[in-house]
Parts: sequence; structure tokens; C-alpha cells
Amino acid sequence: MQMKNILILGGGFGGVYTAMHLEKMLRPEQARISLVNTENYFVYQPMLPEVISGSISTTDVVSPIKRLCPRTRLIMREVEKIDLDRKVVTVSRGFRPRRLELPYDYLVIALGTVTNFYGMPGMVEHAMPFRTLSHALMLRNHVIHALEEADVETDKELRRKLLTFVVAGGGFSGVEVIAELNDFVRTAARSYPQIRPEEIRCVLVHSGDRILPEMTAGLANFAQDLLRERGVEIVLNDRLKAASSEKAILRSGTEIPTKAIVSTAPSCLPDVLERLSCAKSGGRLTTNGELALVSYEGQVWVVGDCAASTTKSGNRVPPTAQHATRAAKTVARNVTAAMQGSRPRVFDFEGLGKLASLGHHSAVADVLGMRLSGFPAWFLWRTVYLLKMPGLDRKVRIGADWFSALLFPPDQVQLKILTASSIAQQHFEPGEIVFSEGDLGDSVYVIRAGECEVLRETARGPQRLAVLRQGDYFGEMAVLSDASRNATVRAVSALEVLVISKPMFDMLKANVPVFRDVFQGLADQRAALD
Amino acid sequence: MQMKNILILGGGFGGVYTAMHLEKMLRPEQARISLVNTENYFVYQPMLPEVISGSISTTDVVSPIKRLCPRTRLIMREVEKIDLDRKVVTVSRGFRPRRLELPYDYLVIALGTVTNFYGMPGMVEHAMPFRTLSHALMLRNHVIHALEEADVETDKELRRKLLTFVVAGGGFSGVEVIAELNDFVRTAARSYPQIRPEEIRCVLVHSGDRILPEMTAGLANFAQDLLRERGVEIVLNDRLKAASSEKAILRSGTEIPTKAIVSTAPSCLPDVLERLSCAKSGGRLTTNGELALVSYEGQVWVVGDCAASTTKSGNRVPPTAQHATRAAKTVARNVTAAMQGSRPRVFDFEGLGKLASLGHHSAVADVLGMRLSGFPAWFLWRTVYLLKMPGLDRKVRIGADWFSALLFPPDQVQLKILTASSIAQQHFEPGEIVFSEGDLGDSVYVIRAGECEVLRETARGPQRLAVLRQGDYFGEMAVLSDASRNATVRAVSALEVLVISKPMFDMLKANVPVFRDVFQGLADQRAALD
Repeated sequence: MQMKNILILGGGFGGVYTAMHLEKMLRPEQARISLVNTENYFVYQPMLPEVISGSISTTDVVSPIKRLCPRTRLIMREVEKIDLDRKVVTVSRGFRPRRLELPYDYLVIALGTVTNFYGMPGMVEHAMPFRTLSHALMLRNHVIHALEEADVETDKELRRKLLTFVVAGGGFSGVEVIAELNDFVRTAARSYPQIRPEEIRCVLVHSGDRILPEMTAGLANFAQDLLRERGVEIVLNDRLKAASSEKAILRSGTEIPTKAIVSTAPSCLPDVLERLSCAKSGGRLTTNGELALVSYEGQVWVVGDCAASTTKSGNRVPPTAQHATRAAKTVARNVTAAMQGSRPRVFDFEGLGKLASLGHHSAVADVLGMRLSGFPAWFLWRTVYLLKMPGLDRKVRIGADWFSALLFPPDQVQLKILTASSIAQQHFEPGEIVFSEGDLGDSVYVIRAGECEVLRETARGPQRLAVLRQGDYFGEMAVLSDASRNATVRAVSALEVLVISKPMFDMLKANVPVFRDVFQGLADQRAALD
Repeated sequence: MQMKNILILGGGFGGVYTAMHLEKMLRPEQARISLVNTENYFVYQPMLPEVISGSISTTDVVSPIKRLCPRTRLIMREVEKIDLDRKVVTVSRGFRPRRLELPYDYLVIALGTVTNFYGMPGMVEHAMPFRTLSHALMLRNHVIHALEEADVETDKELRRKLLTFVVAGGGFSGVEVIAELNDFVRTAARSYPQIRPEEIRCVLVHSGDRILPEMTAGLANFAQDLLRERGVEIVLNDRLKAASSEKAILRSGTEIPTKAIVSTAPSCLPDVLERLSCAKSGGRLTTNGELALVSYEGQVWVVGDCAASTTKSGNRVPPTAQHATRAAKTVARNVTAAMQGSRPRVFDFEGLGKLASLGHHSAVADVLGMRLSGFPAWFLWRTVYLLKMPGLDRKVRIGADWFSALLFPPDQVQLKILTASSIAQQHFEPGEIVFSEGDLGDSVYVIRAGECEVLRETARGPQRLAVLRQGDYFGEMAVLSDASRNATVRAVSALEVLVISKPMFDMLKANVPVFRDVFQGLADQRAALD
């Protein structure tokens, strides 16, 4: 028998567990197993919310893929193109600027889903998904930064915004995030003498009439009451519609002034899968009962969140870790069966139960017919997920983390991720202020869409100096002369801008001639008008 | 007595220990203590190299400043200006675009030093200092990335570069970094089947004729022999002169092909201190024997690496943690003395000894007249630094980290810090290739200084198509048409370029009209010539 190439795309539960099972089922001389993932680690999603409070240390919630499946060749690249007919996958460049083509005999697609903010203005710029380790770290850092700033800020309205945290989506993920966030903010705030507990708002927005639609009404109500008791505001029958740098806007028209919005709700296929011309249903790749991609049976399998599969009994397979790990085993078996010419198996796992952590020694559970809430559910949650965590070293480390979290208060170390020199995108709702006269001039703006007006305070009230439109620049005066803003800029319609920070602007201006010419010309012109 | 404002600048050993001592010496109603630091944590420098291998987890090597000095108001900003005559310090903006002015009665300057690569071409772009937690994380990530890439790379020369690591500076810091780096690379490489141990090079470059000039020749030789035995190459009597993205260049002319250069050597005052017009010696702020800034006695003190101080016996105070913590105590006493009108004390700490860790259960020590090497020195190193680590929770956590490092192999989790959409600077030496015909076109270049030539392979050998100079752009053709490079670009003289990544270029082009016009025009023009 000739050595076969098995290629796995994605390093989440689906991909990594498929590799682990294949390593057990096949001898090294039977197949070359490769796995493509942008990160070299596997994220243990169920515990990701605990990174917010630091009760698990950052690197303990992830496991090196190499350690989990040592015989699999890990290719740390992005998947750029899948050619199902030529049986070739193209991945992005590494240190060397060459694309890499990976031919395969058998392909396992486990690329999951991505967040989709389409049609929700300002969400890309101002709402954060909660999927990866960076998201968890960014959220943690934002919370700490907001607390530090609120502690020295005197403007009441800004303090309020800084201390309000909004999570959209009341499913498992949203509930676990708001529970951890609420606990962390309220505990950490005790070290900030200027922050009073009643200034903190943690808001959960959910589109249904109760949270946790996956669970029974009784458990969901228990969770709702408990979260409310701990200070979480729950907004039901409403959903996030838009976001700006100053507020969250709900469909009902309610506005919540805030600087921190987390959205756990909408998702779609990654671009590279969206582009595949194969059978799809409900925005996922359609598989048969054996988890093979329809029309590519015996060659391509799909596992995890990106698959639309049904079990033997006709139930749709939900996008959870327990289903992905079981599906991975079935896929590994069926790949092996395809190699050996034997019959594939049908996926028949119906789920063992549902667990949601509510933070602070509490949870709800609906497992094997038992319904639990409070401490017993929490204890079950921790036990189940610790046992399910792959690798002994992680189990030990997380045990130690939990032990030390019992002894010591949570930590407020903030690891900064972003640099000061950057270009960002911002969205403003009509009437919102981009900057005010007298503010520090530390960025230059370019209008991508919409209109804004330039205002100056005079004895007769604010006077409109100009209206700016798509393609116009503003804010360069104060940056060029290192002075304060000499006018206020306010959005007239919904406004999309590119924000170029001062260090970045200085670098572009010093080095890119066209950039320098335009801005110097513009500044001269405006100064002459002034 | 009126409430006084004590302002501390900097959150390293000097600043944090001054705050800790002041909290003990003064009652809350006597003084308002504030501390300005860009991060909200204190870095325990002696253990920073251990972050490279992950034997201490990232967040355990730092302590939240709030926990160490709970009564001190922490201001997480950058110091922009110190006005010694008006007694006001200006700090950068936070969430709100306003500068903050902080008036003080007593000022403690503890801002340390910064890395100075002045006059060393390519160092800013391609050499990394080793001072902060981000540096340690960046180095760790680079090592892991290089191993992952080398494992799938077939080009022999590139593999060699990826697996070579150069550290410049053979003082305490450089020796500890190369020791940890060498251990980590060699242990981690075992999980990469394609990497052979003899392909790995870890090089320490030192300007003197032996490393560790602070210690006795006997101990230094012991350290040198031990490092060499473990596979470290030690280059003496030479120093780093320049760097490019492909190599390290030494003063002797030796070139070391590498993608990873760490420099622990040169340092100078931060800009904000450089601009102060006060007494300086040897590039540091001059203090009197009581650690007060000369001409500002009774108002301003300087502690830590940014101070030029001498002890009672006339010895210059070295820039180490043990001296900074003792100096902090003296400064705290003398601030209190100034408030109470009593006599200040003279700084008379002469140092207890010197310790350098060599990784892997080995160290050298010269303490209270005893000279130790090997395991006893290592045990002493760990004990001393664990005891000196402020805060019980950190002691426990680091203890647990060390324990688990004994049980499990080091981890290769790579936390990515940088995003793909960026603008970077690169330096090329004459003759070096910027990109080759056929490479993937994933960035656009702007020339900041120097010249390069555009070459194309023909039947008659490479033909020169053009020479480009300062202000010229290149590489936009392949990016605009999403194709491969249709020519090779090579540096003629030393070349400084700005590298704009494809995602960043696309964003600028889509939104900044002038940018779009120029590049579209340029592409049309070049296509017409083609």
C-alpha cells in the first residue's frame, strides 16, 4: 500500500481530535498526517472566559498542538484556497514569500466559523467577538484600562461609559462571559478607591424572552435570577443593532453609553469555505450521515462548527465541543475506512448534557437527565472540564491556578497588545462628537463614508465652518503644529472614518512624499483661510 | 502641617520600592503619594529571562503595582515633560484627549534608561532589546515561529538563518538571556523531527576578553566553559556594529546570518530626562550623596539606573536591583526628612554580592566573599530571588511554576502579538536582496534612504531595469494585481525602507484618495513601459 497524505484544516476541537484519533488508528508508514492552523496551539474554549479574570493563567487555557498529536506535521499558515477537484490546498506565506501548495489524498475540513457583523454599523470597529485567546486578553486589558482611567477621571459621563460593559447574546458563551466579567470587574474595582460599586454596569442583551435557550426554562430562570442578584442587568427581547465609540444601540432604540461591547452572537463560514462551490445548508457545509462532504464522499470530511450534519435520528448536530470531539472520532474512523476500503460508520452521538458556568462557585447543568444548579452544578462543571482537558500537564497547571485563585484575589496585570502607532477605523452615529475644540491633537482622520461638520464656538453660539465628505481629511492641523484642536467636529450622518495615530502619521509624512505634499498643502490652505 | 504631594516617576525597582517605603513611613494624612508608569505592573527583572522558556508563566514575573503599594495613586500614562522650576509634570492622554498636569511638592525620578542604537545601522529595525515583558514575549514567540518554519523549510541557507540566535553583550543580562535561550531552543527543538541539534547556533558576542566583567575571572571562566559545553558559541573582543533582516554584522567584519538578534548592551537616558537642563555625568542625572538631584536638593531625588550616584566610600552605584531597592529606602527616608525638616541620610550600601544564572540548574555567585558555581550557586540564586520577590502570591505562583517545570517539558505555545496589517521599517546592506522575481507580492516599499536596483533575469543574465532612490515606491505592481514579483530588487547602497503590508496598503488605498491616485498612476505608467 502506498503512503497516503491526510490533510486536516483547522486546529480546534474538530481538527486536533481528528489528528489524535488518526495517530492511534494508523501506523506511521500508512499515512502522512498534516494539520494547518494559524496558531501553534489548541484553545480549550470552555475555559476561555476564565482568562478574563485571570483565574486561569493565559497560557494554561491553550495546549501546544505538537504535544497533543506529536506525529502530525503542523503547518502554521493560513488556508488561502481549497481546490476540491485538483485535490490541492494553498496556504499563505511564512518567512519566505512563497505560497505553499499542499496536495492531499484525504481532506478533513474543521475551520469553524467566523464572526459576521454584516449590516450592523460600527460593529466591526467597536464590538469585539469572543472566540480566540487574543479576544479574551483584549477584553481583560480593556477592563483593567477602563478601571485605571475611571479611577483618575472626573468627568461623570465618561466615568459612566468607562464602567459600563455590554455583552450581546445570551447563549452559553454570552452567559459565561458576562458572569466572569461581572465577577472580575466588581472584585477588581475594590482596589480602586475612587470607584463605587453602584457606578459599575454589566449588561447582557438577549434576543429571546429568556437566556440560555439551549436549556430548560427552570435552569435558565435560576441563572437569570442569580446573575441579576450579582448585579448583572439582563435586557430581553432586544438585540444589538449598531455600535459607536460612545455607545451600544439596540433594535428597540435603547442606547447604552459604553466603551466596551462584546458580541457572541452572529457567525458565518470563513471566506475560504464560503467560496467553495459545494452543497451548503443554513450557511454550513452539508455532510452525509458519515460526515463526508456531499459529492466528495471518500475524499473530504467536515467536522465541527462549519459542518451542517444530522445524527442517525435526524437531529441537527449542535456546535459544541462535546459533539466536535465525537464527530472527530467518527471522521478518523471513516478516513481509515476509506483507506482500507471498508464501510464507513454513521455518526450517532446525541449529546450527554449541557453545562453553563455562572462564575463564583455557581453553574447550571442538565446532564443525563439530571438537572442541577448552584454549587453542585459548578463542581460538576469544573470536574467535567478538567477531566476533558487534553494533556496531564495542563490538568496539573489549571488545578494549581484554581487553587491559587482560592487563596489570592484576582490580579490586575495588564499585558498591552496593541502599539500606539496604528491606523484604526471608527464609526460615529449622527450627532456624535469626533473631537472637541481644545482636545489634544493626536490623530488625523480620513472620511470613508458619511458627512461631518466643523464647528467653532463664538460669542453667538457654535458656528459651522465647513461640511466634510467622503475622501476629505481633517484633524491634521493640530497634529502638524502639535497644538490643541481649534474646532469641534461632529457627525452629521452615520460617519465612517480612518483614524491615523500621530506616530503613524509622522512616519508616513516623513517617508511617503505624496503624503507629505498633500498634508502640507492642506495645512497651508486652511491656515490661509483661518 | 499641610498635606503634601509626592510624585514618583517610574514603576521599576526604584520607583515602586520608594512608594512602598513611603507608605510605611508616612501616615495617609501627611502626604498624597502618586506614581506614574505606562504599565500597571512592576517587572521582576531578575526572572525575566525565564519567560523565554516559559518556566515562569508570563504574568507571574510581574506584580500589579496597586497590590504592592495600595495607598499610592497609580497614573498609567507616559511622562511627557518635567518642569523642575514650576514643579509640574505633564503626562500623556488617556481615554480622553487631554494632557494631565501633575503639580508636586517632592519629586522622585526613577525612569531608568532606554536602549540606544544610535549610529548602528539596522539595529532599530532588526535588533531587539531585552528590557520589558513584551521583549521577553516577542523573543519567545520569535524562537517558536523560527522552529515551526525551519521544520517545514527546505532551503538550507534559510534554515540556517532561522536556527541562529545572536545575543550581544556579555554582562549579567546577556549571559542570562543566552543561557535560557540556548536551553529552550535545544529542548524545544526535540519536538521538531526535521531539526537536527547541530543546525542550531546560539552566539554570544562580547566586547571584552571575557564575559561577566562584573565578576572574578575564575567565575567568569567557569561560566564560559559551561556555556560552551552546552553549545553556546562565545565571540570575544568584538561587538555588534550593524544588523539587517538577514544577518548580524560585527566590527571585525564577521557576518552571522540570522533572523534573531538581541542586544543587551547600550543604553541612555529617556528623552524626557535627556531634555532636562540639570547636572549630568556619564549620561546620567548627577545626585549628591543623599541621592538628591544636584541644585534641587530637598525637592527632587533620583534613584535607579537613571542616576549617577556615588556611595559614602566614593564607589559609583551600579545599575542593579539590589542597589535600586536600597537607594529607594534612602530616598523615602530623605523625602520624609525634607517634610519634617530633619537631616537627610547619606547612601552607604556597598552591595552584598553578585549572582548570574546560567540556566539548567547552574549559576555563578560571588556573595559576601564566598565564590560559588554550579548547582549550589543556582540553588542560592533561586532562593535569594524568590525571597526578594515582593508579594506572597507571586512567591507561591513562581514556586508552583518551577515545580511544574521540573515535571513537564517546556511549552511551545506562541502568543501572537503583532497584527498582519502594519507598517514596518527595514534595513538592507549593499547587495542584499529585498525580494526576488517570483516571490509572493505581499507588501509595498517606500525608500527612506539609499539606493536599490531593479533586475530581471534574461537569457543574457540579469538585466538592470532601473535604479530607485529616496522617496521612490516599489513593489506595488504585484500587490495591486495580486500576482508574483516580476523583478528582483537589490540594495546598491545601505538601504532604509518602509514596508507597508498588503492589508494596510489595501486599507490606505481604499480610503485615502491621494494614496489611491498615486499608486494607480504609478502602476499604469509602469505597465505601459513593460
